Amino acid sequence: MTLRVLGVDPGLTRCGIGVVDVERNRRATMVAVGVVGTSPEQPLDQRLLVIAEAIDEWLDLYKPDVLAVERVFSQLNVSTVMGVAQASGVVIAAAARRGIPVALHTPSEVKAAVTGSGSSNKEAVTKLITKILRLDSPPRPADAADALALAVTHAWRAGSGAAVASTGPGNSSLTPAQRAWAEAEAKARRAR
Amino acid sequence: MTLRVLGVDPGLTRCGIGVVDVERNRRATMVAVGVVGTSPEQPLDQRLLVIAEAIDEWLDLYKPDVLAVERVFSQLNVSTVMGVAQASGVVIAAAARRGIPVALHTPSEVKAAVTGSGSSNKEAVTKLITKILRLDSPPRPADAADALALAVTHAWRAGSGAAVASTGPGNSSLTPAQRAWAEAEAKARRAR
Repeated sequence: MTLRVLGVDPGLTRCGIGVVDVERNRRATMVAVGVVGTSPEQPLDQRLLVIAEAIDEWLDLYKPDVLAVERVFSQLNVSTVMGVAQASGVVIAAAARRGIPVALHTPSEVKAAVTGSGSSNKEAVTKLITKILRLDSPPRPADAADALALAVTHAWRAGSGAAVASTGPGNSSLTPAQRAWAEAEAKARRAR
Repeated sequence: MTLRVLGVDPGLTRCGIGVVDVERNRRATMVAVGVVGTSPEQPLDQRLLVIAEAIDEWLDLYKPDVLAVERVFSQLNVSTVMGVAQASGVVIAAAARRGIPVALHTPSEVKAAVTGSGSSNKEAVTKLITKILRLDSPPRPADAADALALAVTHAWRAGSGAAVASTGPGNSSLTPAQRAWAEAEAKARRAR
């Protein structure tokens, strides 16, 4: 019984996408990873289209149980955050069209889940996700590693009963299969 | 020879949509107007889905020559601006999927085009757009009026040679028909 999570680190210039299968004993295996990039020279509509088409392709190809997206904050500079938010909107809507639940996680939640500390740097996340997924070499660029880390974070947090629904109440968007998985995973954790 | 513009004032709680036909003598006629609303109680993915499906419907039904969207600024409060940007991303990608050019206009560009002053208030925009479109009563809520004002602004500015492309260089996304319209409209303006 595995949970397949597609993680997305949204952005217009580099949008990281990673697919991970996580077993109920928390063992995580990479299925696929990639980065979709567009140039700031391209018009915004074309940039968003490239991301929309890529995410459609990944969702149709890998059929994840859940989509995990980085929660966007406005601490970044104004023009960057707008693009990140617009890209994330496109990604979230693509999952929603397919009835795939969407979960949002903050960068510090990802750092905490993967490295044990919410204030780790990007290098630490890359290093640990490489180890967690038993990869021969670290996923590059960092956006690809972040997407994988997001996916793993989601599976581990979902297992511990964290909210899967994006902004709504609690676990309302958990499918019965996900709920069963979460419960089994929580038991496996406690048994250690 | 008319230009059909679909204007969108993006938002998660209220997304204004308006369709306007503008002749080359600058006479503008309302074709349709509406507001898509979602509740903050709904999960984000469901809110974005409602907007995605609505915009798909409007684009397919009214087949606009161009989509005009309000350019999002981060002066609003953090959580609002994220939702507005995410909604605008979904709307822009929907047009891009159909090969419909997308144009962004700032609120002050809209105010200036419709009322003659970039610092007018929302009431003035509603009042003037009601007059411009020869409507019996003002479009409500304000988001609906804003969407119509955006559409008219785009046609009038496109006519005067303003950029149609979103973030890219100049008029690169003008179709030949739009370019012809823009030139004819510019001539009509000068003839006055």
